[in-house]
Amino acid sequence: MTSIAKPTIDPSWAKRLAQGVDGQRLWQRHAAMAQIGAIPGGGVNRQALSAEDIQARQLLLDWVVPRDYEVFVDPLANLFIRRPGADNTLAPVLTGSHLDSQPLGGRFDGVYGVLAGLGVLEALDAAALTTRHPVELVVWTNEEGGRFSPGAMGSMVFTGNASWEGCLAICDGDGVRLADALEQTLAATPTLARRPFNTPVASYLEAHIEQGPVLEQLGIPVGIVTGIQGARWFTVEVTGAPAHAGTAPLGQRRDALQGAVAAIAALNELMVDPEDILRFTVGRFVVVPNAPNTVAEKVTFSIDLRHPDGAVLAERGDAIAECCRRATPRCEVVVTETFRREPCGFAPPVIAAATQAAEVLAIPHHALPSGAFHDAQFMTDVCPAGMVFVPCEKGISHNPAENAKPEDLFAGAHVLAVAVAALAGVG
Amino acid sequence: MTSIAKPTIDPSWAKRLAQGVDGQRLWQRHAAMAQIGAIPGGGVNRQALSAEDIQARQLLLDWVVPRDYEVFVDPLANLFIRRPGADNTLAPVLTGSHLDSQPLGGRFDGVYGVLAGLGVLEALDAAALTTRHPVELVVWTNEEGGRFSPGAMGSMVFTGNASWEGCLAICDGDGVRLADALEQTLAATPTLARRPFNTPVASYLEAHIEQGPVLEQLGIPVGIVTGIQGARWFTVEVTGAPAHAGTAPLGQRRDALQGAVAAIAALNELMVDPEDILRFTVGRFVVVPNAPNTVAEKVTFSIDLRHPDGAVLAERGDAIAECCRRATPRCEVVVTETFRREPCGFAPPVIAAATQAAEVLAIPHHALPSGAFHDAQFMTDVCPAGMVFVPCEKGISHNPAENAKPEDLFAGAHVLAVAVAALAGVG
Repeated sequence: MTSIAKPTIDPSWAKRLAQGVDGQRLWQRHAAMAQIGAIPGGGVNRQALSAEDIQARQLLLDWVVPRDYEVFVDPLANLFIRRPGADNTLAPVLTGSHLDSQPLGGRFDGVYGVLAGLGVLEALDAAALTTRHPVELVVWTNEEGGRFSPGAMGSMVFTGNASWEGCLAICDGDGVRLADALEQTLAATPTLARRPFNTPVASYLEAHIEQGPVLEQLGIPVGIVTGIQGARWFTVEVTGAPAHAGTAPLGQRRDALQGAVAAIAALNELMVDPEDILRFTVGRFVVVPNAPNTVAEKVTFSIDLRHPDGAVLAERGDAIAECCRRATPRCEVVVTETFRREPCGFAPPVIAAATQAAEVLAIPHHALPSGAFHDAQFMTDVCPAGMVFVPCEKGISHNPAENAKPEDLFAGAHVLAVAVAALAGVG
Repeated sequence: MTSIAKPTIDPSWAKRLAQGVDGQRLWQRHAAMAQIGAIPGGGVNRQALSAEDIQARQLLLDWVVPRDYEVFVDPLANLFIRRPGADNTLAPVLTGSHLDSQPLGGRFDGVYGVLAGLGVLEALDAAALTTRHPVELVVWTNEEGGRFSPGAMGSMVFTGNASWEGCLAICDGDGVRLADALEQTLAATPTLARRPFNTPVASYLEAHIEQGPVLEQLGIPVGIVTGIQGARWFTVEVTGAPAHAGTAPLGQRRDALQGAVAAIAALNELMVDPEDILRFTVGRFVVVPNAPNTVAEKVTFSIDLRHPDGAVLAERGDAIAECCRRATPRCEVVVTETFRREPCGFAPPVIAAATQAAEVLAIPHHALPSGAFHDAQFMTDVCPAGMVFVPCEKGISHNPAENAKPEDLFAGAHVLAVAVAALAGVG
């Protein structure tokens, strides 16, 4: 990992750069992106490597055409848009996020970080600033994981946290292999230069909506993110025996649905947290055969467990399998951990750059941890990394009702531009 | 409703008729039907009005071609195969069942009653017996209800318990309208004579596998069914608010999946029955958006409640909505009763005909109620009706593992033939 010194920001270039951020264009681009995969309620369904994802990437590339940037794509379709620096032998400073959404997703999650990042490159142009390092906008593939699990796949593979080969065989709910969807996505941009995974990165700063209620409740437009809580994901398979709903005595049933209900009730007890910091979610629940008059043979459900304290995460997560088994003595239970990531803290120099940028621009800011999970988490493995948050309405995310104010998006883009420039070196 | 006298069975024609039942052909036809919609494990997926259902109907009609029977179809594709009697102004005696299956169904449920019924008509031919009433084999449409809910649709509409027009708009899980699937089914047999609903029926006797463990445990090949327990079906919609799995504090969530789990746990308490006679099943559970990292916005689950005592059925069923609401104070709960049928007793003369048939043929028999739900239940509204059961392995049904012994199927077909002939009048 490279180490970087705490940057100092000269207010003269910082203010000039901030003036180069085009807020109206930023807002209009959100509206244009929201048309791709639009669903009722103002949201989007633009899942990873879908036709809509391909269309969103193309729209982004269309906006880049007039600029003198280089564009690269890696074997997982992570996209890199590069504004050269004064010394192009140096590793780039990266900023960006993702364009894919949840099945019933909102129009800001991910998109904001990409569009704000493009705004940084354009603001550097507008301010006629040359950075020492190149600055690159990155679009990570499949951050959401709603179609192909797990999420943050692009950044995980880029940083060596997952293998590309392992991802290829993953199938979506319709049985489509990731390899085939990926091939279609890459084929849509055949002329882009290819780049391998894990190219050196000087530092990484990602802008995102908070996806939680803190900033809105404080009335502060910019959050300086201190780190991300850890997460463990599990799949629980409960297998019983099918039976006729009208004839099988309840005392003799091996009902997989009732087994799963008992397991979830027991897990709720296991996960009790009076401080309400722990996050425990069963979001997916699939029944076989799922017919009203047949006792369920099999239920598969997901567990998403998160906590900022690695010790709590270890203890509660490790107790899941035994807890489920005890709760469902009549069924077989198989618990598989599909993903684990320890809590991480962001790099002090990146936090300092964002904080100083907000101070120089006199934008109110607040330091907070991230409850949600982001590509930035994996970037901490390969470079100093951090994030900038903006408020979102009522903390609602992963939903069509997801909303954010243009003035907050604008404030976040200002801080992002100045912090990225500082990290890349100006003057 | 017609009233009929208790029949008397002359052993001479009864034994001759029983000799006309072709057991090997009956077994072979089960094997042939099981190839249509075959699924791993020896079961079938032959859902109502599907391509497989059409194919099964066609195979049945192919077997009928050499015979001098008349074939009719009504507007819901209920199929009637008529062997004329001595007096064709009399209403027919009906026997039959259904050819559709659950999504993961077995090869005997429904099919046995149809094939045994066809065997009755053929045995009457073989024995050169003329009955006073015509005898008709009936194939009811959509008994299972796994694709288009509710089940027993064909017999419900035939007997005026449901409206044909109301059924047409029902959609399956893929959004296919019943009207369209029905049109395809009827178009496959364009030359069949049409018949209206609710034509007069003299009496009805249906053969079926028990779908429960009683006969097998007793080692008795034929059950004389005394009646069918009542049933109430409900759909419960639990609506919460979606949220991000990583950020939303558990204390502030309106998690529809957790609401549904709490409701089911509370319903389990409501449905406690130390005698284990009550049947309570949640077989279908559908989550929106069903993504691992999103708190569920909506869950829809099914309730199948059955009991032989109408008072218990009323009391427990009426308490469901309030029970669910109390268990999930944070979510909205809408409970809709989709089906209700009181317990019914079968007609003494039909029970007597089946009992006497078994006695004349010296086949061991046992009187028992039906735990499962059958078309015969609705026929009690329009004519004296009854059923004959045969054992099935471990009581397993609605599953590929569903199994029955050829000798039991054969014994049941003997009793069915003699009882139907007695009801139709011989000599």
